[in-house]
Amino acid sequence: MPYTALQNLRIVMVETSHPGNIGSAARAMKTMGIKDLRLVTPRKPYSQETWALASGANDIVEQAKIVPTLPDALTDCQIVIGASARSERTLQWPQMDARECGEFIAERLVTQPIALVFGRERTGLTNEELDHCNTLVHIPMAFDFLSLNIAMAIQVLAYECATAMRLSSPTPSLGVIDADEALAPSQAMESFYTHLEQSMIETRFLDPENPRLLMRRMRRLFGRAEVTVSELNILRGMLAAFAGRKFQARD
Amino acid sequence: MPYTALQNLRIVMVETSHPGNIGSAARAMKTMGIKDLRLVTPRKPYSQETWALASGANDIVEQAKIVPTLPDALTDCQIVIGASARSERTLQWPQMDARECGEFIAERLVTQPIALVFGRERTGLTNEELDHCNTLVHIPMAFDFLSLNIAMAIQVLAYECATAMRLSSPTPSLGVIDADEALAPSQAMESFYTHLEQSMIETRFLDPENPRLLMRRMRRLFGRAEVTVSELNILRGMLAAFAGRKFQARD
Repeated sequence: MPYTALQNLRIVMVETSHPGNIGSAARAMKTMGIKDLRLVTPRKPYSQETWALASGANDIVEQAKIVPTLPDALTDCQIVIGASARSERTLQWPQMDARECGEFIAERLVTQPIALVFGRERTGLTNEELDHCNTLVHIPMAFDFLSLNIAMAIQVLAYECATAMRLSSPTPSLGVIDADEALAPSQAMESFYTHLEQSMIETRFLDPENPRLLMRRMRRLFGRAEVTVSELNILRGMLAAFAGRKFQARD
Repeated sequence: MPYTALQNLRIVMVETSHPGNIGSAARAMKTMGIKDLRLVTPRKPYSQETWALASGANDIVEQAKIVPTLPDALTDCQIVIGASARSERTLQWPQMDARECGEFIAERLVTQPIALVFGRERTGLTNEELDHCNTLVHIPMAFDFLSLNIAMAIQVLAYECATAMRLSSPTPSLGVIDADEALAPSQAMESFYTHLEQSMIETRFLDPENPRLLMRRMRRLFGRAEVTVSELNILRGMLAAFAGRKFQARD
């Protein structure tokens, strides 16, 4: 059943201002068979509009998890995709359009929990929030100055995911996946980034007063690579070994 | 220009009850480059909500033609496609799903004006109205008892049309890529792997007598990531800093 895998897809809405948009988003999700909604610090409590617009999808709103920060919403996600209002020419993040995103998700969702993250209605996601994303997705539009309403964007991406799942031929049995070859969980990647940053600071490669884009670029690189558990173990071991060498040399 | 042909697409809304839906539909159309909205006897006049939800698409609402009957909205259309809430098994109309509809429209729109017709929020199109349609389109859904909000359905179908137009036109030139964002040449990657391996050996993380699969795994990881020139510079700089060489040399 292709739609069952869609239970591995989490929709995350960050600091949503209009409670109605949460209801509309829930309905959009449910029409496509997606259930798991997570809200990072919504700006207002649910309103009458939330329930009116949720229509037959009240259960999704009722079961939505409300969390204080984006990382709290991502603890059990292996791949994080941030929705961007337009193609970010400046930052040069890895990018997909909506069609590619649906196919990307359909290929991975059976084995890997994935989060699709949507920012604030007016201002989207901050750069710090984008740092948690492996990649960005945008919906190609006719005009740069316009953007889709957030619930509309969720509808289009949910539709693309459901369509890609439907069109992809039944996945052959994948057999048991070696735990070492599973993707490293988002939390473990965060610990690695912290470790990496500290190592860079200790060796004076990174100046905390002027960090430039070093960590962002490293997050982009490793995010793109989709690091496995065994690879992460090597990377962590390497950092520890390098630190030992440095301290020996300086003692 | 693919978006110009979208001017040959008319969106027709029949007896819409909620004036807000007309505003949302206009915004959905405009994001995808569709301009021509026709309203068959809307049940209420435009409201404040219409304009609020139209957002940057007020011009589409202002220019919408209001007509008394569906045939009045279709006089200059050669192909008429009716949106149906679900696949009509009973009626046995010719049918397409949303993806097929986008491709169907993209193939014909350059030479033939086409109308996409949306019925009432609750009851859809009557049989008499369906008689005016050459074919029906439905958006596949996870549950038969749910339906998309009408503006959401317009968004999804407008998106499918725009995507099909975009994919059928020759890919635009991507322009000049920043040299830093080019992929690192294979020779440079080989030097990096040598550097990485030496660092691992010096810190005794890797035993040359028993290298296991460490380097193979690292090659696999970075190979998958497709490292850019600027990222490779950071990685090389980091290795040098970790070894203590870089700053010792400068001190």
